[in-house]
Amino acid sequence: MSFAFRITHRDGAARRGIMTTAHGDVPTPMFMPVGTQGAVKAVTARDLEGAGARIILGNTYHLFLRPGDGLIARRGGLHRFIGWPHPILTDSGGYQVFSLAERRTITETGVTFRSHLDGSAHTLTPERAVDIQANLGSDIAMVLDECPPLPSSREALETSLALTARWARRSRERFLEVQAQGADGVTVTNAGQVQFGIVQGGVDLELRARSAALTVELGFEGYALGGLSVGEPSDDMYRVVEATAPLLPEAQPRYLMGVGTPLDIIESVNRGIDLFDCVMPTRNARNGQLFTRHGPLNIKNARFAEDDRPPDEACGCYTCRHFSRAYLRHLFQAGEMTGSALNTLHNIHFYLDTMERIREAIAFGSFQAFRQDFHRTYSPRPLIS
Amino acid sequence: MSFAFRITHRDGAARRGIMTTAHGDVPTPMFMPVGTQGAVKAVTARDLEGAGARIILGNTYHLFLRPGDGLIARRGGLHRFIGWPHPILTDSGGYQVFSLAERRTITETGVTFRSHLDGSAHTLTPERAVDIQANLGSDIAMVLDECPPLPSSREALETSLALTARWARRSRERFLEVQAQGADGVTVTNAGQVQFGIVQGGVDLELRARSAALTVELGFEGYALGGLSVGEPSDDMYRVVEATAPLLPEAQPRYLMGVGTPLDIIESVNRGIDLFDCVMPTRNARNGQLFTRHGPLNIKNARFAEDDRPPDEACGCYTCRHFSRAYLRHLFQAGEMTGSALNTLHNIHFYLDTMERIREAIAFGSFQAFRQDFHRTYSPRPLIS
Repeated sequence: MSFAFRITHRDGAARRGIMTTAHGDVPTPMFMPVGTQGAVKAVTARDLEGAGARIILGNTYHLFLRPGDGLIARRGGLHRFIGWPHPILTDSGGYQVFSLAERRTITETGVTFRSHLDGSAHTLTPERAVDIQANLGSDIAMVLDECPPLPSSREALETSLALTARWARRSRERFLEVQAQGADGVTVTNAGQVQFGIVQGGVDLELRARSAALTVELGFEGYALGGLSVGEPSDDMYRVVEATAPLLPEAQPRYLMGVGTPLDIIESVNRGIDLFDCVMPTRNARNGQLFTRHGPLNIKNARFAEDDRPPDEACGCYTCRHFSRAYLRHLFQAGEMTGSALNTLHNIHFYLDTMERIREAIAFGSFQAFRQDFHRTYSPRPLIS
Repeated sequence: MSFAFRITHRDGAARRGIMTTAHGDVPTPMFMPVGTQGAVKAVTARDLEGAGARIILGNTYHLFLRPGDGLIARRGGLHRFIGWPHPILTDSGGYQVFSLAERRTITETGVTFRSHLDGSAHTLTPERAVDIQANLGSDIAMVLDECPPLPSSREALETSLALTARWARRSRERFLEVQAQGADGVTVTNAGQVQFGIVQGGVDLELRARSAALTVELGFEGYALGGLSVGEPSDDMYRVVEATAPLLPEAQPRYLMGVGTPLDIIESVNRGIDLFDCVMPTRNARNGQLFTRHGPLNIKNARFAEDDRPPDEACGCYTCRHFSRAYLRHLFQAGEMTGSALNTLHNIHFYLDTMERIREAIAFGSFQAFRQDFHRTYSPRPLIS
């Protein structure tokens, strides 16, 4: 199956489509649960499928350090290794190098760093990020980009953006070379892998436009917006998405990295984004926060101790069909892993169900009504009753 | 549905039967996974059903302390609270009071102790243990017994045994009273609950016989052997089981508490035991030990890093059908909860599959051949290849 993206419906700037990958179709807009180290934390692949997941994200930085991309290639690639037959997107490892690793040094060549696990020294270059992801065999690979800290001066952003553009060119060249003829130490475990470029530029619209132009000219199969949802106000993010999305090729998928809250996703779909990923549903689940149609609720709160209602009475997930807030609170208080599993299943279902409702609204031309309704009924702050 | 036990096949001293409870039938011999705090650790009820579990054990001590038996009664009982519609057996809480709680004082009345969670003071009497389990609404409740430390002098064992017998009488009287007419502060959440007595007496056959006689005369619906698998040599345990099981009513279920290894279970079935429970399959799973037909394997061992085989090539469980030793080792090394879930599912399946093979062998009159075959092919020590 070769990669394709077909837009089937439009509603304003929002698009509904089907992204075809080497491991199957993904309806868009879609959210990708994060499977950091080869597993979406606390749940099994079967439960993940049951909750509606169709594509997951793997973190190259983590998998490169442990168990190693070479080991995964010898197992036949990431899909086989982790028992997930559906699409996988891998990031480049850059974001974690910039946020987790120690003693980073950035040069024109790439970035050297020490592992947060054992202090071992490593170098990640644009070419190496391509090679690692070829070993992993994800369906969508991302280019290595620099993630400048926020706030940065305009000058620093410009310098970073230029470096990211040069890295993107090297990434694309290496990707085409490796896919066409392989390379030493690389096993192309997925002949259908494609590569997305990443647009940077902070919250400066002019720099975003410049980055978009530099990235698009390299001819990737899809484009991401990076460097957002890193602490800037939501309105700044929406402004950047609104201005930058139209500068990306209309017929290709657009991915907003690391986003986000349910409202951020809806607002970004409204501005033409097709793909999202975020640790929020899974991480918050383990911390006892459950998403509902009325807003998040913190299950550890004492007021849920004798609450026989499911987390969300309108939800059809396994957790909501079988378990009460009282039980989930007990499991959280008792530190039971089963609680993390049940909370994670619910939150993933909530996110994926929201995406399905978004897709349906776009198909019916009622996305604006859906969006307004969501804003009216959903509280971004934890519910208190 | 009223409680019943029907033996359908015999093979030597081994029995195959069906135990009917208020929440359904349990084929015997059967193993009960331990759901300490209202959850079998790391897995969901759905996964537990999928692995073949038909009856689980709940720990009264833990549930009494948190979230409290009153709260569970207000939720409609333990089955409803934890979303497990199948049979549940609860222990009396005594074993954990003797092994986990602090500052214990035993008197004729009962035992006072401080919670291991918050140091709060509590008293557990035979009557209170009945009342708590009535609130929980398990299908099988256990009497409160004293668990003397091993080794104990014969005199200490005799004193303890006499106290346990007096407690058993009080337990039975309270149970019949509560089931017939209720009691203040007690909600009988399961009108079909029955009660098992417990035979103590250490590894002294004469004391075991005396305890059996004192317990059987009280007319319980089933009988357990307590105070075994607490550090004594296996041969001592087998000797006690072999001598004591025939002293229990032929037509009623016999439960060997806290046992055990696969070989201990087979040897005890061979001596007439019908029910077992143990944390071994679940706890060892979280510590990375997987049971296979050839013996346990420790998944963290480096030799499994590139092993593409499932934990057990003959196993049909979800884990073995989809995941390799290499992947499970990676999840263990990475500290991923998903690894605990997959290991737990496998180990529970292994235990329950072993029970099914035991039942089939008894039905076919080939239990001795099965037992000899198991001894020949199963290594009790971790496998090294």
